[in-house]
Amino acid sequence: MRERDFISTIRNRFNHRSELLIKGIGDDCAVFTGDGDLCWLATTDLLVEDVHFVRKWHDPYLLGRKSVAVNISDIAAMGARPRLALLSIALPPSLSSSWLDRWQHGVDSMLGDHGCMLMGGDTTRSSVLTINVMVLGTSPAEKVLYRSGAKAGDDIYVSGPLGTSAAGFELLSKGVQEDALTEKFMRAHLDPQPQVALGLALSASGFVTAMQDISDGIATDISHICGESGVGAEIEAEKLPREEDFDTLCSSYDLSGQNLMISGGEDYELVFTAACAKRRAIEAIGLAQGKSLTRIGSVLAEQGRVYLRQGDGKKDITFGGFEHAP
Amino acid sequence: MRERDFISTIRNRFNHRSELLIKGIGDDCAVFTGDGDLCWLATTDLLVEDVHFVRKWHDPYLLGRKSVAVNISDIAAMGARPRLALLSIALPPSLSSSWLDRWQHGVDSMLGDHGCMLMGGDTTRSSVLTINVMVLGTSPAEKVLYRSGAKAGDDIYVSGPLGTSAAGFELLSKGVQEDALTEKFMRAHLDPQPQVALGLALSASGFVTAMQDISDGIATDISHICGESGVGAEIEAEKLPREEDFDTLCSSYDLSGQNLMISGGEDYELVFTAACAKRRAIEAIGLAQGKSLTRIGSVLAEQGRVYLRQGDGKKDITFGGFEHAP
Repeated sequence: MRERDFISTIRNRFNHRSELLIKGIGDDCAVFTGDGDLCWLATTDLLVEDVHFVRKWHDPYLLGRKSVAVNISDIAAMGARPRLALLSIALPPSLSSSWLDRWQHGVDSMLGDHGCMLMGGDTTRSSVLTINVMVLGTSPAEKVLYRSGAKAGDDIYVSGPLGTSAAGFELLSKGVQEDALTEKFMRAHLDPQPQVALGLALSASGFVTAMQDISDGIATDISHICGESGVGAEIEAEKLPREEDFDTLCSSYDLSGQNLMISGGEDYELVFTAACAKRRAIEAIGLAQGKSLTRIGSVLAEQGRVYLRQGDGKKDITFGGFEHAP
Repeated sequence: MRERDFISTIRNRFNHRSELLIKGIGDDCAVFTGDGDLCWLATTDLLVEDVHFVRKWHDPYLLGRKSVAVNISDIAAMGARPRLALLSIALPPSLSSSWLDRWQHGVDSMLGDHGCMLMGGDTTRSSVLTINVMVLGTSPAEKVLYRSGAKAGDDIYVSGPLGTSAAGFELLSKGVQEDALTEKFMRAHLDPQPQVALGLALSASGFVTAMQDISDGIATDISHICGESGVGAEIEAEKLPREEDFDTLCSSYDLSGQNLMISGGEDYELVFTAACAKRRAIEAIGLAQGKSLTRIGSVLAEQGRVYLRQGDGKKDITFGGFEHAP
């Protein structure tokens, strides 16, 4: 069963109501009522060795940072502020205490970067190193950015280069050595930076209609926005932003750059939509945040389909991304 | 490293402050601010195949129920009401969709029993079936029952028979067939019932000074209360309540009844302390809730030690319980 089919089954089955819940399954985070105008956001990620990370590549300090970062990115994707975390870890008995110590330092470092506090967790053993992190964030309720607000005619933006992390993953898989060319790609995969400050600025602006983070590749991530908003999308191949040296790297190591940009996951940048009339305002937010916000396409009325336009051609890339499928 | 040493390391390292957090690591749940007088409680448990459950014994429906129950029990242990849940599961590719369907039904059933709603989660694959559940509860802030309030001279109570689940676990391990004698013990292990209604009633009474659930065996569970309260405890062997037929079962199957009662885990009953002056009030709560609350010992001034008194003898059983050690 694919992950999204499984989620869809769960979404249909678990239909108990709660007056506390503002938004359940179907977005980057669940949203529930907080104090007064404030609401809480909750997200969780289960990371499994050799599915989500490879221990021999991944320095434990950076893995600790990433274990938290992928969750903080979900909070950022709704324009909220990360606040509290729970951490569960199942450890193989063979794992050294120095590995664990460095991993904990990494967790602490990423939590500290974003003013987020560890409040508890669970620890046990397993033959497979398994990490579950849950992060709670807060936001004024009316400022939360859902996947569901995109409207036909809106522009689609991404907050940074695409395919960087996926290229790094390919290099690590091939056993390529780190050098001046490869280092930033590997680093993007091993130590992604969640876009909390940008998410907050976009949320505060009031101009963004839908947002999520780039975790499964933009083909899939935009498909989620389209599914929840009841719209479609068209993105333009030549507008997709890439890291400097990305094309050089891809030709040096025989990688399909376009495939990495479209279907590669884990850039943990933001993808969002905003009305065409707000182009200058969005540009100003990017400048203020030191981020290059790139307009890559438009929202279409046609429900649920995502197309990639390249020259005269047009290809359906709906959910053409990367899944950690069960 | 033992689980509690690991937790202690984490507790010392992660010392960022948050104005939202009322209680961090060191109790059944973390507690943080909610709406007005209400606070939130958060707990998480990571369950690993062959560490916490054995798939060939555990009907998926009952495993689904238990996956949630162990977390709801932590909410009950603080006198709170379970409200929202997050669910992560890593599935071996070989697992059938009917297994998954029955497991989901079990999750749904336990959530429904306690008015708790699934708000989200994560799903992935792993060679080892791994389940992480996070439950959020609510309580008026001044009604939350911590481990830290026990005072020298208080009585110690348990809310039900001890060793029942551990006996069931032993029977299942030995491959004993289910019959009229063994059935209730196996059921206690496979389908534990969190004591939410009792926890709420004890919290509402205002008479309980400290409480937690019986998950690791009372020797360990009472040691936690003593550690957090800065007190000691003495329990009396002959007062420990046991299921009808417990002694018969233990002699039939060559089990050490006392060991199971002291160190066996997973009864998911409550252990709590209250001033001697409140004995009649506590008894009345038990009657009203249809639960037999048994006074098993007293809180001592001596810090951190737990003793078992039997006849003229006295044995130190501090942390003499069962741990899912990493």
